[in-house]
Amino acid sequence: MKGKFITLEGGEGSGKSTAIESIKQWLDAHSIPYLMTREPGGTPLAEDIRNLILQAREESVSDMAELLLVFAARAQHIAEKIRPALDQGIWVISDRFLDSSYVYQGNARGGSFAIIDQLAQWVVSDCQPDATLLLDVSVEIGQQRVVQRQQQDRLDKESFNFHEKVRQGFLERAEAEPKRVSIIDASQDIESVKQQIKAELDRLQSNWTSGK
Amino acid sequence: MKGKFITLEGGEGSGKSTAIESIKQWLDAHSIPYLMTREPGGTPLAEDIRNLILQAREESVSDMAELLLVFAARAQHIAEKIRPALDQGIWVISDRFLDSSYVYQGNARGGSFAIIDQLAQWVVSDCQPDATLLLDVSVEIGQQRVVQRQQQDRLDKESFNFHEKVRQGFLERAEAEPKRVSIIDASQDIESVKQQIKAELDRLQSNWTSGK
Repeated sequence: MKGKFITLEGGEGSGKSTAIESIKQWLDAHSIPYLMTREPGGTPLAEDIRNLILQAREESVSDMAELLLVFAARAQHIAEKIRPALDQGIWVISDRFLDSSYVYQGNARGGSFAIIDQLAQWVVSDCQPDATLLLDVSVEIGQQRVVQRQQQDRLDKESFNFHEKVRQGFLERAEAEPKRVSIIDASQDIESVKQQIKAELDRLQSNWTSGK
Repeated sequence: MKGKFITLEGGEGSGKSTAIESIKQWLDAHSIPYLMTREPGGTPLAEDIRNLILQAREESVSDMAELLLVFAARAQHIAEKIRPALDQGIWVISDRFLDSSYVYQGNARGGSFAIIDQLAQWVVSDCQPDATLLLDVSVEIGQQRVVQRQQQDRLDKESFNFHEKVRQGFLERAEAEPKRVSIIDASQDIESVKQQIKAELDRLQSNWTSGK
């Protein structure tokens, strides 16, 4: 049986690292073989591409170049890591995936959804997530968490307006695909977020086991 | 008046470095302001992408990832370097451009021409070369020249069959667009190749000056 593919999405400061810990604990408790990965990245080449995308540069990066870099990394990630694992029955949990491209390059930067759709068709094809956990938090709270971190990368430094577009973009995607995307209220304290995630994984697993 | 955009194409060992010297001499002799560049590459980010594409890796690189990396670099190259120069009336000479994508990723690796067409439409749009010089040489002679070099990169190490597909791919493109693509017989000695290139540039310049 194929492994399940679960993606984790959310804006900066939405608490993805904490969420990943909860997911790991749940998978370990259920003795499910899994692989944690992230985007952009996940293979040596894809991580190198990630570094190109995130590093601060004097050169302004064209929107099309950024979009194609993200999908180049994703093509490599799917071919070399995600598909082989799923085919072996291993669950794959990815910190960000296709929704982030729609939201960051589409909603936030104003890129063409038609182009993203076409790239998704070429690159992702049928390798769609079985479930997506969306960590939703207000931009104010997200930004407070980010400034407490030491390092900030190029994307963290975007404006408030940018982050608000990111949040709304994710919520629109959840609304369009409610069966796939579960919204987690990430403005709550850590313990509450962990409980929400574990409850959601229980619900998904129960659906999958009963063939829903 | 906009600058002219000339691209140089050809397989490994076709003598592009020598050809570039001849083109520079011709441009200098005609007091034409110009910018020499290359693909993949041409800007700091695009050169970083070039390094990712050409470096030898243990990981096998998916064809789609390679194709998208090439077009990401091209998007950046056009936005940051080629268009601004042409708009200022500066001629741009690029060592490789779009034809190489069709030939290497399409003809040689069997990639989809429909996908390359779509990427070209998004990324290159109307930034098409005014003229392309194709250095044509047999694979035998090309390979003899390559083995005399010290370093070999990932693409140089491809099989004879691969290089033959590259050669035929370029010749097909020249046949399909004879007005844009001029074939230079690069199997001749260096002096002859230089003379062919300068004669071709004289012919092109004469056509452009007379508005053809």
